Amino acid sequence: FRILVTPGDGIGPEVMEEALKVLGRVQQRFGHEFVYDEETIGGAAIDRYGVALRPETIAKAKASDAVLFGAVGGPKWDDPRASVRPEDAILGMRKQLGLFANLRPVRVAPELIGESTLKPEVLQGVDMVVIRELTGGLYFGKPKRRWENAEGRQAVDTLRYSEREVARVCHVAFQLARQRRKKVTSVDKANVLRTGQLWREVATEVGKQYPDVELEHILVDACAMYLVRRPASFDVIVTENMFGDILTDEAAMLAGSMGMMPSASLGRRRKDGTGIGLYEPIHGSAPDIAGQGKANPLAMILSAAMMLRLSLGLDREAKAVEDAVDAVIREGLRTPDIAGPGAKVVDTRTMGSAVA
Amino acid sequence: FRILVTPGDGIGPEVMEEALKVLGRVQQRFGHEFVYDEETIGGAAIDRYGVALRPETIAKAKASDAVLFGAVGGPKWDDPRASVRPEDAILGMRKQLGLFANLRPVRVAPELIGESTLKPEVLQGVDMVVIRELTGGLYFGKPKRRWENAEGRQAVDTLRYSEREVARVCHVAFQLARQRRKKVTSVDKANVLRTGQLWREVATEVGKQYPDVELEHILVDACAMYLVRRPASFDVIVTENMFGDILTDEAAMLAGSMGMMPSASLGRRRKDGTGIGLYEPIHGSAPDIAGQGKANPLAMILSAAMMLRLSLGLDREAKAVEDAVDAVIREGLRTPDIAGPGAKVVDTRTMGSAVA
Ligand SMILES: CC(C)[C@H](C(=O)O)[C@@H](O)C(=O)O
Ligand SMILES: CC(C)[C@H](C(=O)O)[C@@H](O)C(=O)O
Repeated sequence: FRILVTPGDGIGPEVMEEALKVLGRVQQRFGHEFVYDEETIGGAAIDRYGVALRPETIAKAKASDAVLFGAVGGPKWDDPRASVRPEDAILGMRKQLGLFANLRPVRVAPELIGESTLKPEVLQGVDMVVIRELTGGLYFGKPKRRWENAEGRQAVDTLRYSEREVARVCHVAFQLARQRRKKVTSVDKANVLRTGQLWREVATEVGKQYPDVELEHILVDACAMYLVRRPASFDVIVTENMFGDILTDEAAMLAGSMGMMPSASLGRRRKDGTGIGLYEPIHGSAPDIAGQGKANPLAMILSAAMMLRLSLGLDREAKAVEDAVDAVIREGLRTPDIAGPGAKVVDTRTMGSAVA
Repeated sequence: FRILVTPGDGIGPEVMEEALKVLGRVQQRFGHEFVYDEETIGGAAIDRYGVALRPETIAKAKASDAVLFGAVGGPKWDDPRASVRPEDAILGMRKQLGLFANLRPVRVAPELIGESTLKPEVLQGVDMVVIRELTGGLYFGKPKRRWENAEGRQAVDTLRYSEREVARVCHVAFQLARQRRKKVTSVDKANVLRTGQLWREVATEVGKQYPDVELEHILVDACAMYLVRRPASFDVIVTENMFGDILTDEAAMLAGSMGMMPSASLGRRRKDGTGIGLYEPIHGSAPDIAGQGKANPLAMILSAAMMLRLSLGLDREAKAVEDAVDAVIREGLRTPDIAGPGAKVVDTRTMGSAVA
């Protein structure tokens, strides 16, 4: 298996090291060979090459089975008007690798239920996957530009979707729901947006091909409410790019810390269900705690587990990693972000080693 | 004072009746004369006139000091592809009256803190106003259309902002912050959207004119997190139309029920700070409980209080209504939406009469 490793900025390299430690143990224990290639991306690549993502990196990604992505960004490269930005790395990977479906599972470990700002009884039974469309909508639509006229500065972004883009990500949602509690919640703003109408229409059509799966439609504003009000009622949520960005970060708060939240970004699948993917913790580069051993490596480690399952087809191995994460949590090991009063606080490396 | 009353659909008429009851008492007690005009809007207007909002209604609104707006919509008019929709009423009012700033205060009554799904300690001290830009962005940007080509159905919406549109709503935020805790949080997606860059730039420039007010910028995804994680840290939030739609509904959950949440939509102000406005509860038409006496009239009553203050310049009267609402809550009266175990459950009319 060929894996492209892109640690990136901030805490990216630290958490990546722990994920690789765990994968090393998987190789040993299950007798696999992972061949790694490493590339500089994000702010670090801007400093070194003048761009956040080089064509060489994309070429290597395409020749790999999967990309393990740390995090990008930091105050040094934070000028919103700069022409090169660390975010180009993640946006470029998504677009150029055709990774149109972003899966973000939200589960709350019973031992961590107290870390959330929500009441424990509301979190009982929360187990959802949010599927976010990742290569369309406002992120990439054209025109996307700024200009000036007699009335001053102007700016425009374009929210565009085609039937094909909506259908393929909905199929991912329904297929996943079949392996779960058989319920899909499609989120749109059909009462205001033309793209929302198209989204609802196509989601309904795709749903007809999965008569065993229940489909409900809700408006994005209602969804933002229900995620806080009755999160356990969701199984699979599917939505467009920008809504997914907002709703997944909100949903992450159910688990108390983003330090536990993995993600997978998938493109077209092969017959056996596997295919290239990019695996990334959703926490970002957290420059304020970088280099201090405080970062929680579990989101990166759980992202690696998703890679084992979804790109390498190694289900048993993925399960072993997930079980190991559950076990260290059960044993009471905590990085600062998930440490309640009186907890056994450990550093990034100790946490990684414990899982390994 | 001339007030246009548009009860609308679902629970709109029921809660409006209670707001008018309370305003009647205000007239009596403080010796004012409110002259009402009533217009049919929303689904009811579609049934009667074929459109959700007639030009006559807009003309009457323009000739009034304020519009009291109930709610629109219901299953009968719910086809997202219909060419006339109840939502046209609210969108048309906002656009044609130039109501560019939507104010949504979020406060949690100590007695209702238990109704929220968030932990009481997190809600301690929550007192914010979200200001949502209301006449720009994805809601009204052109092109906004659907078509079909060789690749199938396509749809587009346009997110457009001008410097002027951003500046005027930011001024509303800073002016309000001056009367409060002097902190503005501007929310954008500057790392992905051109409109987000413009938003951040202009917010920064406007902020320089209010050196006594602190300005922070956060990304919309982070804001969705922080609203759940540390809601008490916000004073005034200002953001664009679509983000505001999502974030205000999320924020409403801090208060447990939308039945308590008023809103004001304001256009240009006169020198004395007053000017036309539309006042509307954020809960919507709730067709499932319409006509059963279960609706909570407090959001509509509190919206009327905002009208007294912001369009009629009747500060003392507004305060009297708000105090009366606090008092009935303190006395333990509860409509079903805010009734904890063992509560004194009352119907819509009893609640309205108690406030009056
Ligand atoms: C870094 C940023 C461009 C990115 C996004 O908005 O997609 C991030 O917020 C995410 O959710 O992965
Ligand atoms: C009814 C709908 C068009 C409206 C909106 O999206 O603005 C509503 O959700 C609101 O927040 O007032």
